[in-house]
Amino acid sequence: MTADLSISTDLARQTLTQFIQSKIAEAGLSRAVLGLSGGLDSALACALAVEALGAENVLAVRMPYRTSSKDSLDHAQLLIDQLGVKNKTIEITEMVEPLFKLDSQISNLRKGNIMARQRMIILYDQSEAFKGLVVGTGNKTEILLGYSTLFGDAACAFNPIGDLYKTQVRQLARAMNIPAPILEKAPSADLWADQTDEKELGFTYEQADALLTLLVDRQTSRQSALDAGFDANVVDAVIARFRRSQFKRNAPPIAALNGGVRLPSEWTMQS
Amino acid sequence: MTADLSISTDLARQTLTQFIQSKIAEAGLSRAVLGLSGGLDSALACALAVEALGAENVLAVRMPYRTSSKDSLDHAQLLIDQLGVKNKTIEITEMVEPLFKLDSQISNLRKGNIMARQRMIILYDQSEAFKGLVVGTGNKTEILLGYSTLFGDAACAFNPIGDLYKTQVRQLARAMNIPAPILEKAPSADLWADQTDEKELGFTYEQADALLTLLVDRQTSRQSALDAGFDANVVDAVIARFRRSQFKRNAPPIAALNGGVRLPSEWTMQS
Repeated sequence: MTADLSISTDLARQTLTQFIQSKIAEAGLSRAVLGLSGGLDSALACALAVEALGAENVLAVRMPYRTSSKDSLDHAQLLIDQLGVKNKTIEITEMVEPLFKLDSQISNLRKGNIMARQRMIILYDQSEAFKGLVVGTGNKTEILLGYSTLFGDAACAFNPIGDLYKTQVRQLARAMNIPAPILEKAPSADLWADQTDEKELGFTYEQADALLTLLVDRQTSRQSALDAGFDANVVDAVIARFRRSQFKRNAPPIAALNGGVRLPSEWTMQS
Repeated sequence: MTADLSISTDLARQTLTQFIQSKIAEAGLSRAVLGLSGGLDSALACALAVEALGAENVLAVRMPYRTSSKDSLDHAQLLIDQLGVKNKTIEITEMVEPLFKLDSQISNLRKGNIMARQRMIILYDQSEAFKGLVVGTGNKTEILLGYSTLFGDAACAFNPIGDLYKTQVRQLARAMNIPAPILEKAPSADLWADQTDEKELGFTYEQADALLTLLVDRQTSRQSALDAGFDANVVDAVIARFRRSQFKRNAPPIAALNGGVRLPSEWTMQS
């Protein structure tokens, strides 16, 4: 159970800001847009983008729903004030409720996905208006567990923090002086009251990160993870989540006319 | 200028229906959902899905906007009646207009992207309720030209017609008896009155398909395309569109902690 998740925060900070600079420059642009949820991941992504591009070139968008926690807005505001970043608040309530109302049986899962995708629409629209790229804010743990909405919070032009496990996001966020209330609160998608990621997942981020390091980065077997002392229920839950979410990490396959499958990225032209 | 775009429609029909069957089965499901615009691409995808899965297992969703052409709805209805497919009509007007109203300067391009993405939200929500996968309806021409909305009409679980150029879509659609009004009308995204794809692109699908066959499938150079008699303006417009839309065909890159770039599809576990 001793995967070492500690990172050199200085090196990570430098690598990730350079990555942001190069992706924006490759697109011939100078600006970036991101959603600021009030949580840790988007706060870190925002701080990195500001360090890379300057506060005047980053637009942070808060997109609350009617029932979103007041804390989420306040915590995002703490970061906005600290960084001096450009910002907007666009409430999604009147955009998503017409769809909620079409089905009285609609589940929290469906509502959550609709909300995440509505926020994507707004971010991409703002990115067109602001002439910036949409910065991804998903961490490695949530990408590997599929704990995100496809075409929703997972949608972005590039992702500077997607190779950081949640516990590593926290290390780097602390090094970059993200405000304490954001660093200390329990991670949550804030889709309903008292939701927390760890309650919903059934294991802690510390467990998941250590386990994913073994299973994915070191390619060890399920049995080796059990031998290392991980709880079998947690191991199986993590493996099942990884398998079930494979489709979120792969491009949608295209039927090849000659049989088999094509990926759109295969199509090239002579340079 | 003589790229041969004719296909064996019998073989294509068999290959593409088998692809649909295998993708749905791999997901442990039996059903599919797709948007029916009234145009040719979605009509063909719907006919293929019905042939693959049976009419009772396919949900076709019409999603008009206030200004959508009445013809679009009527043409979709012709196909629904012919195939006997399950169907729903969900108007997007009240979902998208709150966002339109936030910016009096909003362009047609931004409106079109918002509408395409709103339709994605509805399709993915219906796919959860109906327990089916979302079938893509983009053809090879539009994928290669980037003539679609990322996370909008381009979003799907798999795409049965993405290896067919537009002129090949028409061949197969004719062989599958798609209603004549759909076969014969000018392709259009129906985002505003009198919009047609070919007017907007500045060249015909026949030109684009023949040219893309050379440049992409046969990897010939720009100069060879000119030597083959293609108009230089068209060649350069097609190449520019292909280059500019590269990002739509590739997964968003993740910053690797050790420098460089990762793609989420690289992350695996032992089987």
